[in-house]
Amino acid sequence: MKSRISLFSCVLLLHIYEVYSVNVLVIVADDGGFESQVYNNTISKMPHLTELSKRSLVFKNAFTSVSSCSPSRSSILTGLPQHQNGMYGLHQDVHHFNTFDQVKSLPYILKQNNIVRGIIGKKHVGPEAVYPFDFAQTEENNSILQVGRNITRIKELVKQFFDFTGSSPFFLYIGFHDPHRCGHTHPEYGQFCEKFGTGEKGMGLIPDWKPVVYDPWTIEVPYFIQDTIETRNDLAAQYQTISRLDQGIGIVLNELKEAGHDKDTLILYTSDNGIPFPSGRTNFYEPGMAEPMLLSSPYHTKRNGQVSEAMVSLLDITPTVLDWFSITYPKYSIFSKNETVKLTGKSLLSVLDKEPVANFSEVYLSHNIHEVTMYYPMRSIRTEQFKLIHNLNYKMPFPIDQDFFLAPTFQDLLNRTRNHEPTYWYKKLVDYYYRSEWELFDIKNDPEELTNLVSKPEYSTILESLKKKLVSWQHKTHDPWICAPQGVLEDKGMYKDNPQCFSMDNCL
Amino acid sequence: MKSRISLFSCVLLLHIYEVYSVNVLVIVADDGGFESQVYNNTISKMPHLTELSKRSLVFKNAFTSVSSCSPSRSSILTGLPQHQNGMYGLHQDVHHFNTFDQVKSLPYILKQNNIVRGIIGKKHVGPEAVYPFDFAQTEENNSILQVGRNITRIKELVKQFFDFTGSSPFFLYIGFHDPHRCGHTHPEYGQFCEKFGTGEKGMGLIPDWKPVVYDPWTIEVPYFIQDTIETRNDLAAQYQTISRLDQGIGIVLNELKEAGHDKDTLILYTSDNGIPFPSGRTNFYEPGMAEPMLLSSPYHTKRNGQVSEAMVSLLDITPTVLDWFSITYPKYSIFSKNETVKLTGKSLLSVLDKEPVANFSEVYLSHNIHEVTMYYPMRSIRTEQFKLIHNLNYKMPFPIDQDFFLAPTFQDLLNRTRNHEPTYWYKKLVDYYYRSEWELFDIKNDPEELTNLVSKPEYSTILESLKKKLVSWQHKTHDPWICAPQGVLEDKGMYKDNPQCFSMDNCL
Repeated sequence: MKSRISLFSCVLLLHIYEVYSVNVLVIVADDGGFESQVYNNTISKMPHLTELSKRSLVFKNAFTSVSSCSPSRSSILTGLPQHQNGMYGLHQDVHHFNTFDQVKSLPYILKQNNIVRGIIGKKHVGPEAVYPFDFAQTEENNSILQVGRNITRIKELVKQFFDFTGSSPFFLYIGFHDPHRCGHTHPEYGQFCEKFGTGEKGMGLIPDWKPVVYDPWTIEVPYFIQDTIETRNDLAAQYQTISRLDQGIGIVLNELKEAGHDKDTLILYTSDNGIPFPSGRTNFYEPGMAEPMLLSSPYHTKRNGQVSEAMVSLLDITPTVLDWFSITYPKYSIFSKNETVKLTGKSLLSVLDKEPVANFSEVYLSHNIHEVTMYYPMRSIRTEQFKLIHNLNYKMPFPIDQDFFLAPTFQDLLNRTRNHEPTYWYKKLVDYYYRSEWELFDIKNDPEELTNLVSKPEYSTILESLKKKLVSWQHKTHDPWICAPQGVLEDKGMYKDNPQCFSMDNCL
Repeated sequence: MKSRISLFSCVLLLHIYEVYSVNVLVIVADDGGFESQVYNNTISKMPHLTELSKRSLVFKNAFTSVSSCSPSRSSILTGLPQHQNGMYGLHQDVHHFNTFDQVKSLPYILKQNNIVRGIIGKKHVGPEAVYPFDFAQTEENNSILQVGRNITRIKELVKQFFDFTGSSPFFLYIGFHDPHRCGHTHPEYGQFCEKFGTGEKGMGLIPDWKPVVYDPWTIEVPYFIQDTIETRNDLAAQYQTISRLDQGIGIVLNELKEAGHDKDTLILYTSDNGIPFPSGRTNFYEPGMAEPMLLSSPYHTKRNGQVSEAMVSLLDITPTVLDWFSITYPKYSIFSKNETVKLTGKSLLSVLDKEPVANFSEVYLSHNIHEVTMYYPMRSIRTEQFKLIHNLNYKMPFPIDQDFFLAPTFQDLLNRTRNHEPTYWYKKLVDYYYRSEWELFDIKNDPEELTNLVSKPEYSTILESLKKKLVSWQHKTHDPWICAPQGVLEDKGMYKDNPQCFSMDNCL
């Protein structure tokens, strides 16, 4: 009798997949920002993203959980912040970071549920066993320029993926390498690889790309970048590369349609972290943490083209995909048997039906390293009005990565500062390097985050309330840095079931 | 013809192994120091170590390359400093550190050369594929208390190992867990697990151990520990545990003899890092970096019982073992194809014949993390007279680990400092926490390292010379931290073949 029920369930399940076939397509830009009409940029338009926005809910307040590539991708694909999943910094080469073996990632859970998982382009996470993909064309078995920037190649790979999946439900993750900088690794292709595939001499040709070239003087220079010819050239290069990203998005969406999946696939577009400019990537200032996010569901069309004010996080992606597939997050532990891993993100599907009035009013962030030598742990909570940042290694200068250091924009800033010339920048470099342990900003009234309110008595109540929430989230996510930098965490022996912070009294 | 020569070589090789059978036994204490008659301690005698010393060369100036357990063990077993092999901090639990996959470790090279590799007791390194052992009874498949502290169990395992090897040449690594602290994980067994296996109620019984109990008032309190009843009790517990370590050494050496290998085995005894007391483990002050080291060869008996002044490092162990087996270090790269990994340690076999007049006059050290939150990279060079330490994260307080923080000795120091009582310590806690970026000590004239000479003009020549040597070693060992903390390392794109440090100008 039991086997007959199982067979019946099985047939029913197949039927559901056939009728309401449910798939997921996640598109992640690399260091992408708001250079699109969708987010009111009138110069870098991204017409294909605009097309997608018409059948999406556009999130105005989406944030990464960590301002670094591999940590962010691991948080997208696990739903866990970097300090909980183990990917403290970049994954490749000498950086050598990996997710904990014990983590049950989104691809792992989907595998347990017989969903075909594909990844094309930039992966940048590991180890392999934690992120099991059936179809993988990434930097691990290809040139990253080919699978991440050559949109003709990407088109072919997407076709191959759909041939591979057949009629099975799928999860496809496309990691564009655009618009990441490449000046420090491939200067021959320009600062943003904007010349790669243009058809110019020595640049190769990407047949599907029609490069859009920008006049540097027409660029919209955002408030966090000094307005000089050096930065305008840098931004013009970034914009040109973004035209390849946008056309790549168009190609992928077209292939989805060609494969007959435009009516049964949840589509999510976002980026891993902020753009590689001052206060951007590796920072928790707005340009480093705010992300574009579009969510399109063929079954939730009511709010298509609308903008949501909900505070959402890349940590919400895993819960959203699990919700979409009606899969429950498994029960397990990472650090000790006493702990059960719980996702702190939330499914966004309900927001597709109705603007939320509660539960989407704050996001949490956790950052540790980026390049292996760049130890600068930060923890943060961002509400609709305020942001609190805890800089744990605050006495040391904020570290600058190889990539950004050589960027024309940063070199311009450095040279102008060295030569005691006007920088035209909104900050001073010395203040950028040396930060307070705690930074509290009123984002509504000070969107450029220029006034740290942490020592103002009138903000002490909000400060304490935010600190309390942040520490509570650190506890929930088993943050090993919860007592840093003034304390020592004891969580073994007699403190096993009751971890405690003890003061080092380091100001004695 | 070719095959006949190969066959001939093979027979010859077998013949050599039979006649001059060559094996290696490495015994590593855990946080062990100089609590032995061999090193002039008149209270904690370690009679079995004394026995071994009579047929060993005793090194007076042996040093770890890193003052932390897993990093040190990885440097013993690879011959590479932690920054080059990737084991930046502790291996277990949330600490999550691993050696780079590309590293060719000593067990790996021995495997390629058909030497049987065994490990009993504390392993604390990974990943598995980098450290291939044929016979492994460690914390990975046992209780660490059993395989690391129960000397009766260790005896059985050593017997099993010899049954396993048969007549093959072998490399056996014994990682005693004694005399590591256990107050923070197993307080029920005492601060140093000194009660584990005594036969007292609830303590279990280790049949082969005859505990030596010490009167706290007879202890020799070294200069770097305050002389109080708390520290005397702490040291008495450590001494008691050392009696188990010493008898364990006796047991292992006896099993070696029983197996008929006391006349064909190179024996090395040392410890991973300094003792867990102030200025000890996790420090580059002498109590943290100086190690006991005994080297005994049945084929080099001339200097048995003598003391060598040669400056030697745990980085010399891999070259020594390779030299012993007449194996050449393989040619390969870790970070990039442009780099060839070269061991900077040296074989110690020549020192067994003759006190060296050159080449053993300095050692190099590199430390990064210990527990994952304890970021405090240090680089150091120690010559016969001087020591230079570069503290890279010097503006932040020196971190204290979970284990040591709860230790009675540290709690005593903390309480006395808090209560403004005399500490009876040779330093102030505030100076221990906050260190200069550079520390230069004249060890010959200031063995307690109390006077930092870095800003004294009369030492500027020696300072510059040591800095130059240190940086040169960092280059040779591909140290990613070579430009820290003031600079950014560029080693990609146009700097690929010519890595450079660029200044962040962080004092602008």
